[in-house]
Amino acid sequence: MKECATGWLEQLCWNEQGLLPAVAQHVDTGEVLMLAWMNREALRLTLETGEAVYWSRSRGRLWRKGEQSGHVQQVHEIRTDCDRDALLLRVTQHGGIACHTGRRSCFFRLLEGGVWRDADPVIKNPADIYR
Amino acid sequence: MKECATGWLEQLCWNEQGLLPAVAQHVDTGEVLMLAWMNREALRLTLETGEAVYWSRSRGRLWRKGEQSGHVQQVHEIRTDCDRDALLLRVTQHGGIACHTGRRSCFFRLLEGGVWRDADPVIKNPADIYR
Repeated sequence: MKECATGWLEQLCWNEQGLLPAVAQHVDTGEVLMLAWMNREALRLTLETGEAVYWSRSRGRLWRKGEQSGHVQQVHEIRTDCDRDALLLRVTQHGGIACHTGRRSCFFRLLEGGVWRDADPVIKNPADIYR
Repeated sequence: MKECATGWLEQLCWNEQGLLPAVAQHVDTGEVLMLAWMNREALRLTLETGEAVYWSRSRGRLWRKGEQSGHVQQVHEIRTDCDRDALLLRVTQHGGIACHTGRRSCFFRLLEGGVWRDADPVIKNPADIYR
């Protein structure tokens, strides 16, 4: 069982820091919710628990998505690409909010007329999420 | 005009190599087509031409998506995320094929029972795309 797990993990092309970019997409709506990073342990735990675990580069530790906010991501599918150097997770986003700013998706800044404009509404005040 | 362009480019958090991961999503179907990398020049050219230009890390040069295959990506929206360290392009994928393997999306490898399985069909033989 462990050899098998090692097999599929080692078939991925991890970068020099042992990380891969992982895109989370809502399985029902197709929305791209966020891009975060995973190391081997994060991906292994994601598969094992069925909930997305990332590697927080800023905090230098594993980060179970939703550990503070409750906005966990239930993982339905894990995909990699032709080059095996990126991941796509098809998820259900609990609470409907992926972003720490209280928006559905982290990709809420739209380039318009040479300016990044906040294009999507805040669904819930972060102060009410993280308390 | 150039100052403005410099402004929005410099508001992004480029990594040590001056790159950002860019996710291309089909604007109509919501499919996540690929993840590639951009430097400032690639993003500037993408905005200027309305077609996706990436930075090829393997070839060490700018890469206009579709320059060989004809499968260009017409860019409808450029977004960045809360941390300004990733990009999301909403595109029309000409030819309906984003992947050099002849598939719609590069994310065709699905993790199933501890094995990466090719889950999506080849639409067109790569030998017929690149000739």
